Amino acid sequence: MILEVAILDVKNGLEIEFEKNFTLARQYISAAVGYKGHSLRKCMERPSRYILLVDWENLESHEVGFRKSNEYEKWKALLHKYYDSFPTVEHYQTVHENNI
Amino acid sequence: MILEVAILDVKNGLEIEFEKNFTLARQYISAAVGYKGHSLRKCMERPSRYILLVDWENLESHEVGFRKSNEYEKWKALLHKYYDSFPTVEHYQTVHENNI
Repeated sequence: MILEVAILDVKNGLEIEFEKNFTLARQYISAAVGYKGHSLRKCMERPSRYILLVDWENLESHEVGFRKSNEYEKWKALLHKYYDSFPTVEHYQTVHENNI
Repeated sequence: MILEVAILDVKNGLEIEFEKNFTLARQYISAAVGYKGHSLRKCMERPSRYILLVDWENLESHEVGFRKSNEYEKWKALLHKYYDSFPTVEHYQTVHENNI
């Protein structure tokens, strides 16, 4: 399992509209093979910044399975217009984890 | 509940040593009042980059409770020498979440 981390800077004043479109768009990501869950979170220090965390079975399920799908085109059409700059997307593997 | 997100760029070649010290340091963060869990993850695209995700009860439990504690001094002594640049630390509130 790997974690996709995307930092999303949304155009000023369009945060509510972006969040609404995200509730429509999430059906497309959650239908992807290898998708294991996600959370969208809003930054407390910078109100136009969000972080999208997505658990994927492996790198390919995100980069090939989702990004080359028709669902990704629908996801992009709903969301990409809100980004102020192109999102930084990275993938991470777990070193240590502790949940209480 | 809020999420602390820290991007940690570790000095080249010191990744293994940093990870070892992290296993010692984590006792100090997990003893903090309001700490709810953490994960340390390693970037697949940039091998010297890590992300530390910490669930806190609220902003104060991190910024006051932990950062003003003696445990934070021990945490810092174990970890801060490995950072190539000062970490970017932000806090996030959940907008949407889905775990399958």
